Amino acid sequence: MKLDDMILVSVDDHIVEPPSVFENHIPKRWADRAPRFVYDAKRRAQTWTWEGGAAATPFICAVVTLPNEEWGYDPSTLAEMRPGCYDSAARVRDMDANGIVASMCFPSFAGMSGSFFAHCQDRDLAYACLRAYNDWHIDEWAGSHPGRFIPLPLCALWSPQLSAQEVRRVARKGATAIAFSQAPETFGHPSIHSGAWDPFFAACQEEDVTIAIHIASSNMVVTGDSRETPIEVASTLPCWNSLTCAAHLLWCKSLVKYPHVKIALSEGGTSWIPGFLDRMERQFHLQRWMKSDLGGLRPTEKFRRHFLACFICDPSGLLLRDRIGIDNIAYEVDYPHSD
Amino acid sequence: MKLDDMILVSVDDHIVEPPSVFENHIPKRWADRAPRFVYDAKRRAQTWTWEGGAAATPFICAVVTLPNEEWGYDPSTLAEMRPGCYDSAARVRDMDANGIVASMCFPSFAGMSGSFFAHCQDRDLAYACLRAYNDWHIDEWAGSHPGRFIPLPLCALWSPQLSAQEVRRVARKGATAIAFSQAPETFGHPSIHSGAWDPFFAACQEEDVTIAIHIASSNMVVTGDSRETPIEVASTLPCWNSLTCAAHLLWCKSLVKYPHVKIALSEGGTSWIPGFLDRMERQFHLQRWMKSDLGGLRPTEKFRRHFLACFICDPSGLLLRDRIGIDNIAYEVDYPHSD
Repeated sequence: MKLDDMILVSVDDHIVEPPSVFENHIPKRWADRAPRFVYDAKRRAQTWTWEGGAAATPFICAVVTLPNEEWGYDPSTLAEMRPGCYDSAARVRDMDANGIVASMCFPSFAGMSGSFFAHCQDRDLAYACLRAYNDWHIDEWAGSHPGRFIPLPLCALWSPQLSAQEVRRVARKGATAIAFSQAPETFGHPSIHSGAWDPFFAACQEEDVTIAIHIASSNMVVTGDSRETPIEVASTLPCWNSLTCAAHLLWCKSLVKYPHVKIALSEGGTSWIPGFLDRMERQFHLQRWMKSDLGGLRPTEKFRRHFLACFICDPSGLLLRDRIGIDNIAYEVDYPHSD
Repeated sequence: MKLDDMILVSVDDHIVEPPSVFENHIPKRWADRAPRFVYDAKRRAQTWTWEGGAAATPFICAVVTLPNEEWGYDPSTLAEMRPGCYDSAARVRDMDANGIVASMCFPSFAGMSGSFFAHCQDRDLAYACLRAYNDWHIDEWAGSHPGRFIPLPLCALWSPQLSAQEVRRVARKGATAIAFSQAPETFGHPSIHSGAWDPFFAACQEEDVTIAIHIASSNMVVTGDSRETPIEVASTLPCWNSLTCAAHLLWCKSLVKYPHVKIALSEGGTSWIPGFLDRMERQFHLQRWMKSDLGGLRPTEKFRRHFLACFICDPSGLLLRDRIGIDNIAYEVDYPHSD
């Protein structure tokens, strides 16, 4: 396709990070301690490893164009994947073929909200590596094809202050979005209700940086008993974590304080939103003894002010698109994941 | 209204149990140790208390016709409530006024799945009291006005075998439904995926007893960090616990084994179901490498075979009623609760 023929923007794809992430961006002082991409012969997988732990990309997160019979949760190597997973030039060729003019890419090993970096106890090392990761993402991944990627740096999940600082730093580099967690308290960090994240919300509002909150960006288990639960349950439910996340955000005092914060509910889908808005309106009216304060707005107005609903395939949600608000809905490809 | 003019059946209301529950039904041997309804001067509340613990009914669960300004979560006394909460004759007068021909009533102090009885370590005492409770419910509450109540006895949450036995016992007394938990494993009992509940599912299928699973019948916290979470979050979200529960049940091997089990998702609402069925169908197709077995049915067929969706007020769900299946939807009043 020619560039002018493409109109679709995908606000949720994923990078399987190539070995060179830290190479050009980590200060010399930290170079020896940055995460390394190594082959783990026992697991037959390539793993990012450092003093903060280790992470591999499960094969199910890189299955684009591979036969269904080969899918699975085993860890993977780059050689098994389509090059568009990890190579930006190959990715752009695949976007061209798919009619996608621009794409916003979430991480793989780094975790949907950068939790990989938050696991490192040396916070100076963690922040140095996070900055290097973000610089690689903005300058190399997105920078390689201007206009074809919406850069998506990561927050410093362990520190609202550093996250605010990073928002301002990446905004100066041209970023308009930053990845955050559905529930930082599930990783042992402050909850959004504590007020601790206000500097981060303030920075996002002032710099006009959208907060992108992807499913699986918390440490929450919605599926109950994990030992016996069938694999299909965990595979069916994750979208609805965005519902819980949206309820927390909508009732959060910080969003009254920062009324211009914009939030993308990445891979959250749309189908639950009409019923959620019905419920919020009913709650607001019936439980008026709670004297809830949404800054003078009704729940549906507040939802439409703050949220972007993001979907891959959602026939029932789209039937009720007018109840969501068609300006509040965006499309996702989820390349190279299985959906 | 005249009885012949009434067509509405409410499959979800609640009894605030009167002091006489155990009086006529507990065997002499256990009479001294049955739960007692006492006034707790410190809490200004009436509390059911015994060696298994204590439970009061929060005022928000008995607010019918009371001014909104007086609603709240404080524990309550019967004298503060409309008599229809605890008196079956007064309840029937209120049903007449509301055009409700028949009502299925869930418990209050006993817990939505009878967890109150499961907390008692003396299992013989617990089962004796559970049987007495069920006999009171069937013979006195429902029996006082034949045809106006759908009896709803409770399962023995701590024992699949006793639950199966109770299903057969109450079926002989005319019961066609029994209350069960959204997630028994959250109370420390076996999960539905363990196979342990198969005798219970078998009894329900053979006796044609519907399993009624009300929201708040598990010990699950969907709202994350409890200390700082605003009260509105917990008040907004509970319906969607039925979504998680439905996903577990639909992917549960026991429902393939017992394909005629019927389940009411009480107070679960309808709005999430069209999107849930979309997702189940997509999961079933895309993740076919998982070789999922729904007994030869597609997810939507299986949902419609097993489930009754129950709603109080759900405009968006009803717009998509044909995608749910109109024979799979039932109405609820939720008397005397705040919804």
